[in-house]
Amino acid sequence: MRKEITGFSNPTVKYLRSLRDKKHRKRSGQFLVEGLRLLEDARSCGHLPRQLVMAEGRHPHELLSRLEAEVETAGGEIITTTPDILSKITGKSNTQSVVGVFDELGTDLAGLNRSSAKIWLVAQDLRDPGNLGTMLRTGDAVGAGGLILIDDCADPFSAEAVRASMGAIFTQELAQARWEEFLPWLRGGSGQLVAASLRDAVPYRGAAYQAPCFILVGNESQGLPEEYETECDLRVTMPMRGRADSLNAAVAGAVLAYEVLAGLDAEAQNG
Amino acid sequence: MRKEITGFSNPTVKYLRSLRDKKHRKRSGQFLVEGLRLLEDARSCGHLPRQLVMAEGRHPHELLSRLEAEVETAGGEIITTTPDILSKITGKSNTQSVVGVFDELGTDLAGLNRSSAKIWLVAQDLRDPGNLGTMLRTGDAVGAGGLILIDDCADPFSAEAVRASMGAIFTQELAQARWEEFLPWLRGGSGQLVAASLRDAVPYRGAAYQAPCFILVGNESQGLPEEYETECDLRVTMPMRGRADSLNAAVAGAVLAYEVLAGLDAEAQNG
Repeated sequence: MRKEITGFSNPTVKYLRSLRDKKHRKRSGQFLVEGLRLLEDARSCGHLPRQLVMAEGRHPHELLSRLEAEVETAGGEIITTTPDILSKITGKSNTQSVVGVFDELGTDLAGLNRSSAKIWLVAQDLRDPGNLGTMLRTGDAVGAGGLILIDDCADPFSAEAVRASMGAIFTQELAQARWEEFLPWLRGGSGQLVAASLRDAVPYRGAAYQAPCFILVGNESQGLPEEYETECDLRVTMPMRGRADSLNAAVAGAVLAYEVLAGLDAEAQNG
Repeated sequence: MRKEITGFSNPTVKYLRSLRDKKHRKRSGQFLVEGLRLLEDARSCGHLPRQLVMAEGRHPHELLSRLEAEVETAGGEIITTTPDILSKITGKSNTQSVVGVFDELGTDLAGLNRSSAKIWLVAQDLRDPGNLGTMLRTGDAVGAGGLILIDDCADPFSAEAVRASMGAIFTQELAQARWEEFLPWLRGGSGQLVAASLRDAVPYRGAAYQAPCFILVGNESQGLPEEYETECDLRVTMPMRGRADSLNAAVAGAVLAYEVLAGLDAEAQNG
């Protein structure tokens, strides 16, 4: 279905704008994905937007034409509007942009199949949406099953997180849970909980990682609460040769994830 | 020296505000550091601000008192102002904040002593100031000598880069150069140039890294130009098990830097 919107006060415009806000995303269960590249990533992962919004007179693009056709076939809506209204929706001045409206992806712990992957990333209280998106991207690269968000993390469906994920939000499973829910779930099956820590830890290099390995990364300024660290099956340290005693959270998770990947690969070859 | 500023139109206010802008930083050769934690990091690395700005009635703090005393002893200025004017300077509403004005640090290639460290990070056309700051932080952690910025990188003295560096901007050497300057400088001494690449590359794990090792990380969307990759002494690949063919630039640099560190450490022990 095709629709044209020409008025700023159109309720659809108001609705789309509202999706830039976490509260409204939560209420509606939808989120925005901006840019043809991300939309193409979504499509190639089997995710089509419910609505596709672009400015009239946008330059034609082969990928966009295919996407439009698929959205229409799937019963979605193609909305054209004025460049000004598009800018109002995205909050940016790029009138060549295309915006898709997606249903939020499931974030239920019970929906995860832990044995589907050797690595899972777990973020606790991570406040920076860019860090969340970067962890999703890293998760995709190391073949992780997904990202589990513990306690009060940033919203993975914010524009910044989606952008930083570079499409990995569509390839990685997502779950959100409180620690009190996560821990019983984890202990209800196999799974090694690992964190970088300064407490009673072994060197991260060549440590005894086991699949499925859950890599726990703590809050940007506080790190992990002590009781969370104590729950870990393995605590590891990374070299810190300078003044600082910590890395950026997404960086720490990635360095550890690549080490775990190498360890599990070597084990698979030797076993 | 102590000074009180009560008027919004005071030229010092105008000057301090202007330092949020790259063009004005370049012209004046000064930059802002916000927050007691970062200022304390700077102090402990031997860097004191020329001016220290805070709102009147700020809560007292032991570290701040010491910092004030040292700034005054060094001939610097302590400026108190109203909470409103402080907010105008920082662009934020936190009136408990403290802001320091620092002289920009040297960024001359000729000033680097390459044999002072086994690892150097090199960023090419990196546009995200957060990525630059994160690379500085990672550099500190792996004991790198510093960060070399090639071509058109973001400004390392922006508030975002300084914040993301978590103080490492004061522990790491910085240099800025065009590729045409960097390459002759590099080839004028010992140094292995390494990059992650898909071209004719060996696995990054256990590759033959040599100190001083210069780890080259390319632009966030374009990666490295082909001719830059060709110049590298060693091209390595990292596993990519998902859809994506690349990592976040700061993450890629960190994973590689930790691998280089482990390789050079092992070599030092065996040699």
